[in-house]
Amino acid sequence: MSSRIGSVVIESVRPELEGGRFAVKRVAGDTFTVEADLFKEGHDVLVAIVRWRQFSPAGQETPWAEVPMKALGNDLWVAEFPLARNGRYQYTIEAWPDLFATWASELKRKVDAGREVRSELLEGAALMESTAERSRPFNEEDAQVLAEAARKLKQPPSPELISVALAPELARLAGKYADRSLATQYDRVLEVFAERERARTGAWYEFFPRSAVRDGRTHGTFKDAEAWLPYIQSLGFDVIYLPPIHPIGLTARKGKNNSLKAEPEDVGSPWAIGGAEGGHKAIHPQLGTPEDFRRFLKASELHGIEVSIDLAFQVSPDHPYVQEHPEWFLHRPDGTIKTAENPPKRYEDIVNFDWMGPGRATLWPELESVVLHWVKQGVRMFRVDNPHTKPIQFWAWLIRRVQDVHPDVVFLSEAFTRPKVMKALAKIGFTQSYTYFTWRIFKQELEDYLTEITSPPVSDYFRGNLWPNTPDILPELLQRSGPGGFRLRVALAATLSSSYGIYSGYELCEARALPGKEEYLDSEKYQLVAWDLERPGHIRDWIRKLNAARKQHPALQLYDNLRFYRADNDRILFYGKRTQDGSSQVLVAVSLDPHLPQEALLDVPLEELGILPEETYQVHELMTDERRLWQGPHAQVRLTPEQPAAIWAVYRFRRTEQAFDYYE
Amino acid sequence: MSSRIGSVVIESVRPELEGGRFAVKRVAGDTFTVEADLFKEGHDVLVAIVRWRQFSPAGQETPWAEVPMKALGNDLWVAEFPLARNGRYQYTIEAWPDLFATWASELKRKVDAGREVRSELLEGAALMESTAERSRPFNEEDAQVLAEAARKLKQPPSPELISVALAPELARLAGKYADRSLATQYDRVLEVFAERERARTGAWYEFFPRSAVRDGRTHGTFKDAEAWLPYIQSLGFDVIYLPPIHPIGLTARKGKNNSLKAEPEDVGSPWAIGGAEGGHKAIHPQLGTPEDFRRFLKASELHGIEVSIDLAFQVSPDHPYVQEHPEWFLHRPDGTIKTAENPPKRYEDIVNFDWMGPGRATLWPELESVVLHWVKQGVRMFRVDNPHTKPIQFWAWLIRRVQDVHPDVVFLSEAFTRPKVMKALAKIGFTQSYTYFTWRIFKQELEDYLTEITSPPVSDYFRGNLWPNTPDILPELLQRSGPGGFRLRVALAATLSSSYGIYSGYELCEARALPGKEEYLDSEKYQLVAWDLERPGHIRDWIRKLNAARKQHPALQLYDNLRFYRADNDRILFYGKRTQDGSSQVLVAVSLDPHLPQEALLDVPLEELGILPEETYQVHELMTDERRLWQGPHAQVRLTPEQPAAIWAVYRFRRTEQAFDYYE
Repeated sequence: MSSRIGSVVIESVRPELEGGRFAVKRVAGDTFTVEADLFKEGHDVLVAIVRWRQFSPAGQETPWAEVPMKALGNDLWVAEFPLARNGRYQYTIEAWPDLFATWASELKRKVDAGREVRSELLEGAALMESTAERSRPFNEEDAQVLAEAARKLKQPPSPELISVALAPELARLAGKYADRSLATQYDRVLEVFAERERARTGAWYEFFPRSAVRDGRTHGTFKDAEAWLPYIQSLGFDVIYLPPIHPIGLTARKGKNNSLKAEPEDVGSPWAIGGAEGGHKAIHPQLGTPEDFRRFLKASELHGIEVSIDLAFQVSPDHPYVQEHPEWFLHRPDGTIKTAENPPKRYEDIVNFDWMGPGRATLWPELESVVLHWVKQGVRMFRVDNPHTKPIQFWAWLIRRVQDVHPDVVFLSEAFTRPKVMKALAKIGFTQSYTYFTWRIFKQELEDYLTEITSPPVSDYFRGNLWPNTPDILPELLQRSGPGGFRLRVALAATLSSSYGIYSGYELCEARALPGKEEYLDSEKYQLVAWDLERPGHIRDWIRKLNAARKQHPALQLYDNLRFYRADNDRILFYGKRTQDGSSQVLVAVSLDPHLPQEALLDVPLEELGILPEETYQVHELMTDERRLWQGPHAQVRLTPEQPAAIWAVYRFRRTEQAFDYYE
Repeated sequence: MSSRIGSVVIESVRPELEGGRFAVKRVAGDTFTVEADLFKEGHDVLVAIVRWRQFSPAGQETPWAEVPMKALGNDLWVAEFPLARNGRYQYTIEAWPDLFATWASELKRKVDAGREVRSELLEGAALMESTAERSRPFNEEDAQVLAEAARKLKQPPSPELISVALAPELARLAGKYADRSLATQYDRVLEVFAERERARTGAWYEFFPRSAVRDGRTHGTFKDAEAWLPYIQSLGFDVIYLPPIHPIGLTARKGKNNSLKAEPEDVGSPWAIGGAEGGHKAIHPQLGTPEDFRRFLKASELHGIEVSIDLAFQVSPDHPYVQEHPEWFLHRPDGTIKTAENPPKRYEDIVNFDWMGPGRATLWPELESVVLHWVKQGVRMFRVDNPHTKPIQFWAWLIRRVQDVHPDVVFLSEAFTRPKVMKALAKIGFTQSYTYFTWRIFKQELEDYLTEITSPPVSDYFRGNLWPNTPDILPELLQRSGPGGFRLRVALAATLSSSYGIYSGYELCEARALPGKEEYLDSEKYQLVAWDLERPGHIRDWIRKLNAARKQHPALQLYDNLRFYRADNDRILFYGKRTQDGSSQVLVAVSLDPHLPQEALLDVPLEELGILPEETYQVHELMTDERRLWQGPHAQVRLTPEQPAAIWAVYRFRRTEQAFDYYE
């Protein structure tokens, strides 16, 4: 306790996830905002900075940089720094009393009050002298300016001297060499992970390449799947997601409609991974060769589409791991391997790993090598199967390991599980997550749920990827709604979140379910399907327009900018999105009724849109391509099962003759 | 990574203040509730416990105890433990998969499904064997029971064997010796400080003992102040708070009405502490001797009143510290001591300590010795003057040091400062705090503010002590309201919080202010005052009834049980308080209009009160002593400036003839 110490308090730093245990998520190109509550006893002028750097465990850290924080009142301080590149950043806060600014502020108030300030000027001289000493090692010229100021301040007070003392240049120098020995360091270094744009924004299309021939008999190949690419591109999708592409086990293979006994021609579930032909690093021979797969990746890229594959960390009993690494599995007392089960249900074609047993020392690195194998082939997006059935500690380890070297890798969590587990998986690193959107179909529940997952603190770590259907789920609404339901659900998905996806067949309004279940009849999980893309009643044009709207309007590409507004009809949802600078502003109304026309009076949020109450503005409805002039805070909308959504791009008329080139 | 490890996740532990940096506050006698989110991948049955102990830095910790947590659904778990005694407690969480319960649950489901379970029973046998091994060091008898079960389970399956396997006694033993090597420990040990009842509940009365003679001329003594005690007792107050009782400096002593020049007869501000007669451990000679003070403490105790004194850690220029410890103060370049100022304001009669300078090594312990000195005299409550002008680090250190040895000591923070600083002082340890209640006078602002400070997380650490006036503050409303305002404000203070206080003169409706300010004219801070306790217009009876209501109705003695209800008049505030078991239930309506009668229809919260819609119940209005029968969810109230508050104790008629002794 020999020298003076500081006493600034740094509290409530935001964002800070679980006390700094996990990184918050942003996107490269974003400006990152850090807030904190800062205070100190008494009336000292405070200075605070955010220290930040891009951080790479590979040892290529950029040096720490500093950005000053600004006081917004009520002890709230804020600073921003740019997340220029994809990768991990660290940030923390430092704050200290600015002794010179405090002194100068008090001096000014005393001078204004006509007080004698001789002693105050001598205090200032002492401050300047110590500042000069601190500056000397860095800049002799600055040191001389400061020392000269100190000398002057020792003279008897005069108006000139007061001007010297309060000169902005002197304050600048004093601040530059402030006494940081009185600084408080925030006791945590926090992290933000800046991902690439596709981590936030994308329209996903899931299909089974083995059905690419579309006759229901011939096993499709990656070459056949290439022929599907122009179709997917024409619909406007950004990402295709393929169920597992690996060899499929024969032991206990499931037959059509999940029957326990497979016929010889049955193709099996792609999630029963591994057979004589190999495991998680191999490609199913009937799909093609590794070369074929790389060719397919290349072809997709040429169509402007990125490929995501499935990470399903489980094996069929025929997987090479089972023989080669018995220590990775649990065995029954009779020595046989334990297959997956949740009694009375059994999954005889699936064996789970013994995640936390002694074998994890080699198991975990092997699974990491699976991911890195596919990264090497050119895959940068992984849809992760049932992550909630594996230890969260494994995922935290895996994702960090992979992203430390490949920060552009994206993991989509298929966490259809309890809400806290779903969120925990997002906190520890999953880029995106499936959501309960699939089962949120009416107004209040949609508003509540979407508000929750698109607002802080949840939106700091969780990005919901909205799926109206998956190969596992054909929701009740779609089973009974006809095309109106398909239209409205995909419109909601495409405009409520920046990421959404459909599983093929959705565009054909495929709605045949197993009786009493939310599962597809003749599910593609267990057989080849003969998709007729020209089937009457398809909604391809509807989906194409939705994806075009998403591409053309940046407001629809952001995740945490969703705001709900009032519509006077419980069957019509009304909401909007805008970019922070207002250059892209979109309003959306969607009917939740697949059966009947619905009308509503909408409360247009003029103030948020920056529109004056008396101003006339233009709206461009993107699904019908109709333009209208609107005025005032109310608009009427009529939606029908054929046209259940309206998406208005909103434009102001802001130019006048004064912007005309030759006006002056 | 040689053996199996666990994978339970423990999240969102509540209460947990600032990530465990600070203790939450409760009262001895409370039951303490701990909640957490617990989950694990897969379907294992989880077991969780809260580990807790009373913790004393003096080394008399009780051993850690364990209490099981219960699952409430949605991964939320909860446990309770008793805070029997005044002092600090520690708590943390441990959770593990119950391998036996998981096995038994799966076994049962397989048996119910008619599956062959030979292999399962062998698994159970292995579990029992390892459990027997774990039990042996503790209880040989248990070990034999478990080993015997293991032997049986190796026999071929039979209905009897299944019964053995699923016997509750076996489950109990297996749980008793569970394999905790798979447990997850929560990574923080949290603290809760259980204070004595008076830390939460009390009616405070502040007065200047030097005015105890009440002639405005004769300096009162502690002996004179003793004569005031029956009066204070008759009003029903629990605590008296005395402004500083120490010698007062002569240098730059303030005159009447804060004038810069004191006349010879002026008594000075008690907050300008220290003179030739001594400092913070001395007693002002004109008040009496240390013996007189101890006698006064004793006399107060006999009247059922506890005494709080003022901790004002600043000195007059005449304080002995100034000469004896120059290293505790800042000096100007000319060698003179720096007096307090906030330019252009100067406080020439006050010198602040240099809190964080090198002298703190001896300054802080000296100030601790000041507190311990008065604790030794018998004082256990301290009202702390302007804590926000001293470093928060000092208060954290001081309060912890004192309460580690004397957990019954209470610190009331006079933190009339910015909201985040006020809360920070509460977080680091202040027992109670002054609040903005003094300036919250209308319905919405009262509801908002009181809801904020009486609800978690704020109520976990902050207890607002509500003061309608202080020697520093005569609010505008009281200056212009007449007795109606005094009645309504004290009724609010006494019923909105478990702790409140008034400064003497309030009961006489003293309202003379310095023009344009919220300060008293002829303030007692600078002169003796001739209080006429029989002055016409006093509201002594009103205050006596309020304090009697507080004493008789435990619901009014709790802090975080305040709930606001609807009244259809913006000038009438309607709220209620109840004990958790419902044995004390009180409803309160207060008019916020000091000038006119007001009426309202009240929405009685029947469901919260446990009253059926058709039930007739009794209310006892405590300010008028009138009893009424009410029925249904609505009641009408009329309040007037003379009777601006109604406090209803609510009683149900629950006895029937079946409770009559001789009924059967």
